[in-house]
Amino acid sequence: MSGDTCDDIMAATYRALCEHGYAAVTTQDIADEASVSTAALHYHYDGKDDLLVDFLEFLLERFERVHDLRSGATADERLANLFDSVLGDADAGRSDFLAVMVELRAQAAHDEAYREHFDRSDRLIRERIAAIVRAGVGDGTFRDVDPDAVATFLKTTLDGAMVAAATTDRADHEAVRAELDAYVRDRLLAPGAD
Amino acid sequence: MSGDTCDDIMAATYRALCEHGYAAVTTQDIADEASVSTAALHYHYDGKDDLLVDFLEFLLERFERVHDLRSGATADERLANLFDSVLGDADAGRSDFLAVMVELRAQAAHDEAYREHFDRSDRLIRERIAAIVRAGVGDGTFRDVDPDAVATFLKTTLDGAMVAAATTDRADHEAVRAELDAYVRDRLLAPGAD
Repeated sequence: MSGDTCDDIMAATYRALCEHGYAAVTTQDIADEASVSTAALHYHYDGKDDLLVDFLEFLLERFERVHDLRSGATADERLANLFDSVLGDADAGRSDFLAVMVELRAQAAHDEAYREHFDRSDRLIRERIAAIVRAGVGDGTFRDVDPDAVATFLKTTLDGAMVAAATTDRADHEAVRAELDAYVRDRLLAPGAD
Repeated sequence: MSGDTCDDIMAATYRALCEHGYAAVTTQDIADEASVSTAALHYHYDGKDDLLVDFLEFLLERFERVHDLRSGATADERLANLFDSVLGDADAGRSDFLAVMVELRAQAAHDEAYREHFDRSDRLIRERIAAIVRAGVGDGTFRDVDPDAVATFLKTTLDGAMVAAATTDRADHEAVRAELDAYVRDRLLAPGAD
């Protein structure tokens, strides 16, 4: 299918997921949102989960555009920009999106295709964060920390914050952000670097 | 129903959830595991989700027994014991349990009864962690940090680690643990306290 059709189907998948949730959404809902026939969808996808795993791949490709990991002059500025973009202001649309992501991620607990996706996307995102930390260690901004361990820790905390936002009524991003900043300052920044 | 019957049903619910997963498990599966009639289950519960929310309450009551938050002489030892018990050695049974918890938590993205449960259980667990941090600030073990913000941050990171363990093939608890220890040392411990 053409790139435009693909983008249309991905946008329709997103809207249908937000409206119906993972368990209730059908390929018919997605076809209706995209104004295509279900036959056209079934030509490309074996079913709902096949389409949804492809949707996750689409989101992963967009990750770098949404979360620009190269903006910022120094390693600590780049991490702060990442925290901003993941823990940014919650609006209603974002809350729907987080709910969908948490539901899709839960499928990985028992479905191999989802598990493979999240395994790979976690690794890719962690590698991007580790590259920022490694550069910071290299140019003396950060202490001599283990970039992979730090990246795993930060990714884990950001994932936890997204799960909390999707599944509870509290907005605790402010507290998480304050302590992430404290961690960067007290654990990562080299003495005299700030 | 008697306490013993209740415990039997909760244990049966746990086994049935681990075997079938959230989406597939039925009250019939749980009744079979508990060797009771489905009529007996339906006498106490309106359906599967009503029973599962009660199961989550049962787990929450057990939380303090499983994660003993009072063991340890100092605040940093108590936090280390908490990290040990949450990020302890993964065995097959524990991995099944985490998968079940992540699936149940995902229901909170769109189901009010699950949402109320996780809202309340998150708050309760955070308050227990905050009490440890507050005691540490009070006796000079920790710096003058915000106990609630620190507790939210730690709970968020531990939740993220459980989600990662349930939904990916990686075992990154070692890296998360190393950086949690570094956070306690560099961010929380008062100079000269260790």
